[in-house]
Amino acid sequence: MANIADSSISRYAIEAFKFQDGTQSNVEVAYLDINPSASKTALVISCFRGRLLSTFTFSKGALKDHRIIVVALFGNGESSSPSNAKELLGSPDYRDCVRAQHQLLTEHLGIHSLDVISGFSMGGQCTYHWTLMYPTFTRNAVIICSSARTSRHNIQFLEGPKAALQNAIDYVDTRRKDTAPPSRALRAFGKAYSAWLTSAEWFDEEMYKALGYETLEAWDRDVAGNNYAGWHEDDLLYKLHMWQKGDVTAIDPADNGDLSKSLAKIQANVLLMPCETDQYFRPDASERESRMIPRAKPEVIPSIWGHIAGAGTNDTDTKLMDKKIADFLASSP
Amino acid sequence: MANIADSSISRYAIEAFKFQDGTQSNVEVAYLDINPSASKTALVISCFRGRLLSTFTFSKGALKDHRIIVVALFGNGESSSPSNAKELLGSPDYRDCVRAQHQLLTEHLGIHSLDVISGFSMGGQCTYHWTLMYPTFTRNAVIICSSARTSRHNIQFLEGPKAALQNAIDYVDTRRKDTAPPSRALRAFGKAYSAWLTSAEWFDEEMYKALGYETLEAWDRDVAGNNYAGWHEDDLLYKLHMWQKGDVTAIDPADNGDLSKSLAKIQANVLLMPCETDQYFRPDASERESRMIPRAKPEVIPSIWGHIAGAGTNDTDTKLMDKKIADFLASSP
Repeated sequence: MANIADSSISRYAIEAFKFQDGTQSNVEVAYLDINPSASKTALVISCFRGRLLSTFTFSKGALKDHRIIVVALFGNGESSSPSNAKELLGSPDYRDCVRAQHQLLTEHLGIHSLDVISGFSMGGQCTYHWTLMYPTFTRNAVIICSSARTSRHNIQFLEGPKAALQNAIDYVDTRRKDTAPPSRALRAFGKAYSAWLTSAEWFDEEMYKALGYETLEAWDRDVAGNNYAGWHEDDLLYKLHMWQKGDVTAIDPADNGDLSKSLAKIQANVLLMPCETDQYFRPDASERESRMIPRAKPEVIPSIWGHIAGAGTNDTDTKLMDKKIADFLASSP
Repeated sequence: MANIADSSISRYAIEAFKFQDGTQSNVEVAYLDINPSASKTALVISCFRGRLLSTFTFSKGALKDHRIIVVALFGNGESSSPSNAKELLGSPDYRDCVRAQHQLLTEHLGIHSLDVISGFSMGGQCTYHWTLMYPTFTRNAVIICSSARTSRHNIQFLEGPKAALQNAIDYVDTRRKDTAPPSRALRAFGKAYSAWLTSAEWFDEEMYKALGYETLEAWDRDVAGNNYAGWHEDDLLYKLHMWQKGDVTAIDPADNGDLSKSLAKIQANVLLMPCETDQYFRPDASERESRMIPRAKPEVIPSIWGHIAGAGTNDTDTKLMDKKIADFLASSP
């Protein structure tokens, strides 16, 4: 085990980590330790294309009196990922992320219970896995724009960017020649992803202007292009596969794929915050899930920002989430 | 001019057709002439990836007492298209399709007015263009899962399949070497398109089973793969560009891009039939448009089949549309 400081980012090494698929590798879990002397403790998990330092943590609001451990999912380029691993990593599974994070908390940081785990999108899916793999570890879970099982619609949408990337001329070239980043592949990926991120209403109302873009084309150049700079194509695919496979019913084979059976076993208090216009982590799915969880509170974010409403992208939605989280934590048994 | 029979498909040739962009080419408009001795006359326009013989025409129901001219849009591989044109075609625009269709009707078929024009999706957009380019030509217009102006959201979604195709290794190879169809490019295109076609609810409820597919993967193999056999990659791109540019406000520069100004000039009775779960030709856009048209009747298709509800894909929706069209035509002034 080693703990290598890299500015504020720490890395916890685990030797011969056993992946769910039976393989094993030496791995590292990258994390931040924010406000370490606070009385309460929170774990915040990164999302798809999420880096530690850009993960929204509510550290100035609802979680201001919490020590916050921010952890990076495998595949994000900070924790072990195809781009930085010396050995082959196992096939990606949220359960691996959770077990590695659990080991970081218990064996390295001496944390044996949490007040809250929170995650947006893939981070929310990982949070769901936590509540069932270590049912008494956290008292509260905050799951933002996410789901307990990736829907078929979501799986199919992800086939788009995946195929765009995997069939691109310079992705194939990269695999053969190990040359420069495959800019065409990344751009095709970004294009195939871009219209899903927000909502039809968001485009209608030209909300990219609120982000400082004069035109749709200018927004597209960043969102479906420049913003992928520094992202490794195989890390994107690794995480995308983890996302497609996301399914809490896999944790206990006795559940036989029955989501209501799995979710009925959640002991944490759960705050579910879907966005009403999210095109793939749909609010109706969160509402259905909330009815299967013993102590769940659904709070729909009324916003045209779609999926990224939950990412801290705009003040109005962020303030509302912060307030709802604070209220939830204050009133949770 | 020539009229070349090809089984039931006829082709009407126009020499030196002037495209909207200032170029000119010899072109052909492919069409069917169904029930030619009927008293009333309808024009039905093909959709994206629509061939003449698979275009749903309501010829057994609401339009059974109509002579039905089914026309293929430029770029569908039957009318002039990149795949079959000897000369360079102009850049695609619905106005070109409408003027060529108008010439077919008036100069070749001797039809100088219509009882109804109908179209689904791109066919509906072309129908909208008809109502403003030849305002007194048709008494009625039936516009199914479509819009008068392609929304920014729709434009952006189309960037996905477009980029997937244009960056694919075998698309680039084809342009260089003129070899076999680029199966990887077409598959990437199909993948990036596939999750948009229906709705999240449709995937939740495994409705691909209603189409005879046991699994999502089996459906995917056809919908994002095999179904593109016979479609030429450059025809897809040609039509996709026409779709992205779709905008009735371009017809009259005096409208200055104001959709309400343009739609206020429609003289036809218009039946608008969006599907409530369509992910890109959204029902709220059709409702907005209906309020801008002097004589418009919005009838939302209550279905989880999303966009393809309007394509005649399933009996329930098709029967409902047929009934609504029959009622509309019977009651229209």
